[in-house]
Amino acid sequence: MNVGEAQLEQEEVGEIGLVTPEDFHWSEPFIFESGQTIPEFDLRYETYGHLNSDGTNTILISHALTGDHHCAGVHSIKDRKSGWWNNIIGPGKPIDTNKYFVICINTLGSCSGSTGPESINPETGKSYALTFPFVTIRDMVRAQKILLDHLGINKLHAVIGGSMGGMQVLQWAIEYPEFVERIIPMATTSRQNSQAIAFNEVGRQAIMQDPEWFEGNYDVDKGPNVGLAIARMMAHITYLSDTGMDRKFGRRRQAGSDSQYSFDIEFEVESYLRYQGESFTNRFDANAYLYLTRALDYFDLAGSYGSLDKAFANLKCRALVIGFTSDWLFPPKQNREIALAMLRQGINASYTQLDMDLGHDSFLVESPELYQLVEGFLSR
Amino acid sequence: MNVGEAQLEQEEVGEIGLVTPEDFHWSEPFIFESGQTIPEFDLRYETYGHLNSDGTNTILISHALTGDHHCAGVHSIKDRKSGWWNNIIGPGKPIDTNKYFVICINTLGSCSGSTGPESINPETGKSYALTFPFVTIRDMVRAQKILLDHLGINKLHAVIGGSMGGMQVLQWAIEYPEFVERIIPMATTSRQNSQAIAFNEVGRQAIMQDPEWFEGNYDVDKGPNVGLAIARMMAHITYLSDTGMDRKFGRRRQAGSDSQYSFDIEFEVESYLRYQGESFTNRFDANAYLYLTRALDYFDLAGSYGSLDKAFANLKCRALVIGFTSDWLFPPKQNREIALAMLRQGINASYTQLDMDLGHDSFLVESPELYQLVEGFLSR
Repeated sequence: MNVGEAQLEQEEVGEIGLVTPEDFHWSEPFIFESGQTIPEFDLRYETYGHLNSDGTNTILISHALTGDHHCAGVHSIKDRKSGWWNNIIGPGKPIDTNKYFVICINTLGSCSGSTGPESINPETGKSYALTFPFVTIRDMVRAQKILLDHLGINKLHAVIGGSMGGMQVLQWAIEYPEFVERIIPMATTSRQNSQAIAFNEVGRQAIMQDPEWFEGNYDVDKGPNVGLAIARMMAHITYLSDTGMDRKFGRRRQAGSDSQYSFDIEFEVESYLRYQGESFTNRFDANAYLYLTRALDYFDLAGSYGSLDKAFANLKCRALVIGFTSDWLFPPKQNREIALAMLRQGINASYTQLDMDLGHDSFLVESPELYQLVEGFLSR
Repeated sequence: MNVGEAQLEQEEVGEIGLVTPEDFHWSEPFIFESGQTIPEFDLRYETYGHLNSDGTNTILISHALTGDHHCAGVHSIKDRKSGWWNNIIGPGKPIDTNKYFVICINTLGSCSGSTGPESINPETGKSYALTFPFVTIRDMVRAQKILLDHLGINKLHAVIGGSMGGMQVLQWAIEYPEFVERIIPMATTSRQNSQAIAFNEVGRQAIMQDPEWFEGNYDVDKGPNVGLAIARMMAHITYLSDTGMDRKFGRRRQAGSDSQYSFDIEFEVESYLRYQGESFTNRFDANAYLYLTRALDYFDLAGSYGSLDKAFANLKCRALVIGFTSDWLFPPKQNREIALAMLRQGINASYTQLDMDLGHDSFLVESPELYQLVEGFLSR
């Protein structure tokens, strides 16, 4: 391959490279679904590509429970890791930043720059902590709409997201039917079921019973890190699959560990989980974890709109719903139900089930099959 | 129906009624698989029915992780709950105490009367706590064999158990092939896999990071109850199934609770889980939970014997292996593998998969299909 060809390849499928997060400040009160209010809010977001002149080429990426706005590119040339969905977003990639203006926003109630329980309440000068309003998926979407309006976005070419991101995707289509042209909800559900509520409750109890929690009034640099790490370790198992874990870790002993007959790390999977738990406490706020898991628990489109069919009755978008065979947190059946209800309402919807064995997190993994589906759907 | 008929019915399928646990004391040292020793041990057990003159009609019931020796009958006429497998054990029941001498023994390392980390070390006068040796499934079985020999039991007509009980069942057949005539392992595995180790590790971390744990040296009436309850809540979810939980709890709100938009109990499943966690701390020792989950983690017949086929090469028993469709902790596949390896070794083994949607705990539930299989297999 000569230099010309190499350059051409690079142009065909390239990387976004350096990106800088931006902050949006809204200085008017925001009323939550619960009736509670905050006097103002901030949203941190990233964009990739360029908005066209009529403001109709935007793709909104909705992040999952513990995700953030940084879904592609790097913040510094020293960054070893790109944004969480960098494999699918970029010049020439399935979500093609040469064509689309891509935006991802840290949700309201989270802790990566957008207003949440960790933020300072301007009326008290202290963190909201547990005085922060209960946030719902609908609240997240409504706050994001304010930002999109501000940016001059007139239509969403598509809204795409997995897990809690998929819930937001559905809510977007319901709340703003004229604004949303295409949706791709993945690895999600229209109704948080009993088992998922149960796992969330165990995580919350681990946090709230940590003596460092102090009813939510912990110092920002301390906090219930033990409980938060326990919650994360447990939740992390629910994002994987039996088969995937067996392939990745099996019963392998931790390299370099002489431990045998001990309660220390003996198996690789233990080391992996402890790392996941510990590193999570460095990047996530415990109260935000409480609020966001509660937002998941409250999500029930059939309950909120009378039935799933009624929830989707006014949709104007096309939909591609994707489930993953090995996802046992939001199993294929729950994804399929979404597409079926849409089809009953005469909506142009399809359901696809991808046979990947990485569990709930399959949607984050490189998959040519997924890429082709997304690329094809976006270009229709 | 006249009185005579009613009496006859009662005789046909009756209840065991009042039982008294018994204690066996062994005053010689016991050497664990790890090489560690204890100077003596006790085992608490219960028996139902009568041992025949040649000591060949015994059925040994092996209990699960947090089970105990009290598997049938009641301890007092005021008891509202019978032993944990009372539905299958009794006069005229599938495990028929009119025919068989049934025995169930609290395992070594547990905390319901048998020697475990909570027991007093006679050499120090204090609880063993973390000086207790690491116990394995094989250790449990070897200690039980000493008791059975003492009782004059010459053969086991059958060994039956689910989950950790099923592991003991397999180990019995391997360790004492001449002694064991029939085995029924259920809802179990021959090799604790990565996901199951992971869940155990989260539970142990919840306990060991509880500030009340004190490296295992807590007071018997205090202890790391928060961590133990968290561990139990999480583990309890793994014993159920998505479908079963949705039927039992769904998204139902807690009756009598006005809570809405709160971190208190809002959903029934939250109330159920908290109750499971709290009540567990009243009956189980946190250190015992550490030791017994580690025993599960160490269980790997293929690893210990070179391969599963080699592990089963000398078996003399018949085997009925039972898996449950909705068991995702020890899924059907793992149960089927056991029977297949036995069949490859020419052993008279069958595998049956029962279609029950109650998850791992399905083996504990009343099921005519299960009863007929067990009764038929025992009578061959």
